[in-house]
Amino acid sequence: MNEKKVDFHGGNIYKIYREKGMKEILDYSSNINPYGLPKKFEKAVIENLSVLEKYPDPDYVELREEIAKTNKVELKNIIVGNGATEIIFLYMKVLKAKKILIVSPTFGEYERAMKATLDDIQVDYFKLEEAENFVLNIEKIKTELQKKYDLLVICNPNNPTGQFLLVKELEKILEKCTEVGTKLFVDEAFVEFVEDWREKSVIKTGKNKKNLFVLRAFTKFFAIPGLRLGYGICFDDEFMTKMLEKKEPWSVNNIAELAGKILLQDKEYIEKTNNWIKIEKKYMYENLKEIEGLKTYKTEINFILVKIKNEYLYKVNAQILREKMLEKGILIRDASNFVYLNDNYFRLAVKDRKNNVRVLEALKEIFENIKREKREKDK
Amino acid sequence: MNEKKVDFHGGNIYKIYREKGMKEILDYSSNINPYGLPKKFEKAVIENLSVLEKYPDPDYVELREEIAKTNKVELKNIIVGNGATEIIFLYMKVLKAKKILIVSPTFGEYERAMKATLDDIQVDYFKLEEAENFVLNIEKIKTELQKKYDLLVICNPNNPTGQFLLVKELEKILEKCTEVGTKLFVDEAFVEFVEDWREKSVIKTGKNKKNLFVLRAFTKFFAIPGLRLGYGICFDDEFMTKMLEKKEPWSVNNIAELAGKILLQDKEYIEKTNNWIKIEKKYMYENLKEIEGLKTYKTEINFILVKIKNEYLYKVNAQILREKMLEKGILIRDASNFVYLNDNYFRLAVKDRKNNVRVLEALKEIFENIKREKREKDK
Repeated sequence: MNEKKVDFHGGNIYKIYREKGMKEILDYSSNINPYGLPKKFEKAVIENLSVLEKYPDPDYVELREEIAKTNKVELKNIIVGNGATEIIFLYMKVLKAKKILIVSPTFGEYERAMKATLDDIQVDYFKLEEAENFVLNIEKIKTELQKKYDLLVICNPNNPTGQFLLVKELEKILEKCTEVGTKLFVDEAFVEFVEDWREKSVIKTGKNKKNLFVLRAFTKFFAIPGLRLGYGICFDDEFMTKMLEKKEPWSVNNIAELAGKILLQDKEYIEKTNNWIKIEKKYMYENLKEIEGLKTYKTEINFILVKIKNEYLYKVNAQILREKMLEKGILIRDASNFVYLNDNYFRLAVKDRKNNVRVLEALKEIFENIKREKREKDK
Repeated sequence: MNEKKVDFHGGNIYKIYREKGMKEILDYSSNINPYGLPKKFEKAVIENLSVLEKYPDPDYVELREEIAKTNKVELKNIIVGNGATEIIFLYMKVLKAKKILIVSPTFGEYERAMKATLDDIQVDYFKLEEAENFVLNIEKIKTELQKKYDLLVICNPNNPTGQFLLVKELEKILEKCTEVGTKLFVDEAFVEFVEDWREKSVIKTGKNKKNLFVLRAFTKFFAIPGLRLGYGICFDDEFMTKMLEKKEPWSVNNIAELAGKILLQDKEYIEKTNNWIKIEKKYMYENLKEIEGLKTYKTEINFILVKIKNEYLYKVNAQILREKMLEKGILIRDASNFVYLNDNYFRLAVKDRKNNVRVLEALKEIFENIKREKREKDK
C-alpha cells in the first residue's frame, strides 16, 4: 500500500489570499466553466429567492424527476447530494468496503471518504503508467480484479490525467466486476465536457446493473462550485434504500434544487460550452506542447496534466513553478501529492482564450528564462 | 428503552402537496420567522450571486470569525455545517457514544444521528413529566446521571415543549456531567427567540468547559431553512480537530456563508423579530387557553405544544385534527410520534397576527362543533 498523504483538495485559494495578502488571483487550479453562472439561472434565483424560506423537500421529488428524465432512468434510481462529495461519503458509509481498488493517480476524496467510514480497510491502487500516457490497461486490470475486491473506483474522465475510457472498455471492466462480485463506482463529475458524452457514459452499458454506481456533479459544467449539487445513479433498490436511511435530511439547499431543475434544460449554455471546450482544449494542448521543458498529455476535457521534463527539474519543479506562477498572479495545481505522481507534475485548467493566452505566456517566459540562463552559464 | 419509532421530520409539506393535490397550505408545522427573508440579505445575494462560481473556503475562516466575534469566543471554537443537522451527525460520528441519555420528548434527529453512526448503542430517555408541565427536574436528572452516560442531550429551548432551562439550572447539570465524566450536548437552535438570550445561553456558564458542545442554527430566526446553515461551539481543541478531520469538505454553500456573515449584524431585523415574538407568543397562548378542549403549555419561543383533553379524544385526536385543519388549508404538527407524547398532542407555530387569528378561528370552530354535536346528542 502506498503511504502517500492524500490531500483532498487542490488550490485552497482563500488560504493563499490570507497568507500572501493577495487580492486577485487567476485560478487555474480549479476546473470551472469560464462562462460562469448561466444567465437563465441567475434570473431564476433572483425571481425565486423566497424558496429559501421553506425547508427543502426531504425527498427532492421534482429535482430527482428532472434528473431521471434527462438520464432516461427512473426516479428511484436517483439520489441527490450536497455536492458530489456527500454522495461519495454516503456511498462509502453504506458499502463499508474492506478491500478496495482505486485506479490512480486520481481524486483523493474516495480514499478519504472510505477512511472516514472504517478504520481498518485495505486500499490498493491500480497504477496508470506514465509510459502508457496514463491510459488504463484493460487486460491488466482484469487480472488484478481476480483478487476479489469489494469495490473498484474509476474516475472517468480521470482527474488529474484527463483520460477518458470508452464505453466498450468500461463494459469489459463492468463484466469482470460482475463476474468476481466487485462493485464498480464510476465518478463522472467531468463527463459533460466530453463531446457527445451521453453516448459515452458508463450508463450506456451499465443501465440496470446492480453493482454499478455512477456519480455526477453540476459543479464544474455549470460553474456553480459554491452552490453544492451532485447526484448518483444506482440500479440496486436495496442499496438505494440503505443510502436514503443513512442520509442527512435536507442536505441539498433550495437554490441548488432550483439549479438542478432548470440547468439541464439550458440548451443555449450547454451548446456554447461544448463549442468552447472543443476549441480551447486543443488550443491549450498544442500550445503547451510547443513549450520546451514540458510534456503534455492529451485531454478529453477542461484540464490538462503537464509534466516538467527531468532536465529542467534542477531549476524548477511543480512547487517552485507554482510559486513562480503565483508571482504572476496565476494559481496552478501542483499535482505532486496525487498518488503515483511526483514533483514533475502540475495540472492546468482550460478557460477562455484570453486567460489561456496569459497562462501560456507566463509558462513560456519561465521556461525560456531557464533555458537562457543555462545557455549563459554554459558559455 | 422506549421502542417508539423516531420520525425525523414533521410536516413534509411537499408530500402533502403531492398526495392531496393541494396548492397552498398555511404551514404551522414548521417554526420559521414569519418576517421571511431579511431584506438586507436578499439585496446582498442579488449583488453577490457570482460567489457561486467559486468553491467555498474549506476552512470558512471569515464566516467562523464573524460567528466567533458575536459569541465572544475564538475562531477555533466554531465549526460550521450544512444546517444544524450536519453538526449533529458529525458530533455523533466523532463521539461514538455507547450509552446516551436524551431529555425527552424532544427532536428526533439526535437519536437518528447516533443510530446512523453505531449499530449497538444504548439510548435512554429522561422523561419530562406532563404533570410538571414538561419542566426538567434538576434533582432527578442529577440522580440519573450517576449512571455514567457518555453523553447527555438537551434541546434548549426544547422542541416540542417550548420549555427553556435557565442558566443556573444548566450550570448544575453541567457540573454534574463534569463530575461523572459525561459530555453535554445542548441544542440551542431556537435560542434566539428567547428574550435576552445572550444572557441565558449555556455558553454563559459553560464557556471553556471541554465537555460542553453547543449547537446553533440560522434557519429559524432568519427564516432561511432552505439555505442550510448551522454551527457548533466547542472548547475541546482535540475534539474539534477530530470533527474537522471527519467533516465533508465544502458542505456549507457560498450563499449560506454570505448569510452568516451579514445576518448577525442585521439589528433591524433582529429587533423587529424580538418585538413580534414577545407579543405573539403571549397572544397565541392566551387565546389557545380559551378554547375548550385544549390544554396549552406556556412557551418561551415561536411554537406551542397543545394537548387535546381526554374527554374530546373520542371525537378528535392529533391525527384527525391534522386532517380537519388540512381541510381548512392549515398544516399543524401532529406531535404523537415524539417519544412520551401520544395522540393527545399537537404543535403549532407562532406566526404573524393575521395568520395566528386564522389558525385560532379554525381550531375554535372545530372544537365548538364537537361540543354542539355532543350537546345535541345528549338532548
